[in-house]
Amino acid sequence: MTAQTAETRAVEAANQAFYDAVETSDLDALENIVLTGPLAESVSVVHPGWPVLRGRGEVMRSYALIMASTDYIQFFLTDVEVAVDGDTALVTCTENILTGGPAEDDGSAGSLVGGLVVATNVFRRTSAGWRLWVHHGSPVLAEQEEGDEGEDGPEEPAL
Amino acid sequence: MTAQTAETRAVEAANQAFYDAVETSDLDALENIVLTGPLAESVSVVHPGWPVLRGRGEVMRSYALIMASTDYIQFFLTDVEVAVDGDTALVTCTENILTGGPAEDDGSAGSLVGGLVVATNVFRRTSAGWRLWVHHGSPVLAEQEEGDEGEDGPEEPAL
Repeated sequence: MTAQTAETRAVEAANQAFYDAVETSDLDALENIVLTGPLAESVSVVHPGWPVLRGRGEVMRSYALIMASTDYIQFFLTDVEVAVDGDTALVTCTENILTGGPAEDDGSAGSLVGGLVVATNVFRRTSAGWRLWVHHGSPVLAEQEEGDEGEDGPEEPAL
Repeated sequence: MTAQTAETRAVEAANQAFYDAVETSDLDALENIVLTGPLAESVSVVHPGWPVLRGRGEVMRSYALIMASTDYIQFFLTDVEVAVDGDTALVTCTENILTGGPAEDDGSAGSLVGGLVVATNVFRRTSAGWRLWVHHGSPVLAEQEEGDEGEDGPEEPAL
């Protein structure tokens, strides 16, 4: 295994650990993955459809809220691409998400719904390993076809 | 002006130049802003609602298409935050976008529509200045309120 491959795998593992922490509602694990230190105030997260959240504190609070209000969530990551340059690593991937609604009155599981989100994640190298600096997720609203973005007219040609 | 301030301003200027290039449909200017070199294949862009575009070639083609199909676009950037660490800079901002529809039959300007997009932009330091490595824009679908994300149900709790 080349050094480049080992490094790429380490970043992939950090990326997977991030999603695993959310999937298992493990806030402690997530605390361990999100960057600390001098850049902690610049940690930024965009949940799909949300404004930007900035700073480690605000980011962690948002995840605590989301975990508390999500009964079931599962991520199937596809199209994962990693690029490493120096102390920065970029991961782009597609999150194929399965979420469960609240349980039914009779105690049976709620209905499952799927969603498609694309994510840009940036990691920084630390002495403890790769840590998440930036996460931006956004819903895929339509196939990538010119002039066929549908209901979100103003956003479609916007960059 | 401290070194940190000068650096932050240089990144802000690169960020503004990126939006100016799109606003003025100046593909040559954009060519100059998007990263070249060893990381060119990992350049990634997500236009609002789109899947991930990867590689400088695919990214530039998408901008050429967008420029060709956009009659008028103007960006008012607000809430611009910059963090610099080593050779990497992170910019998060809100794009307040004004776009114009096609001209009317009588030659008068088409109607204007507004849109709200949040962006995560990552720049790399090069010998020629800061260059764009990553751009991810996504529509703000609702105010950040718990359980009030509206029509995009499955995406709301998704990360």
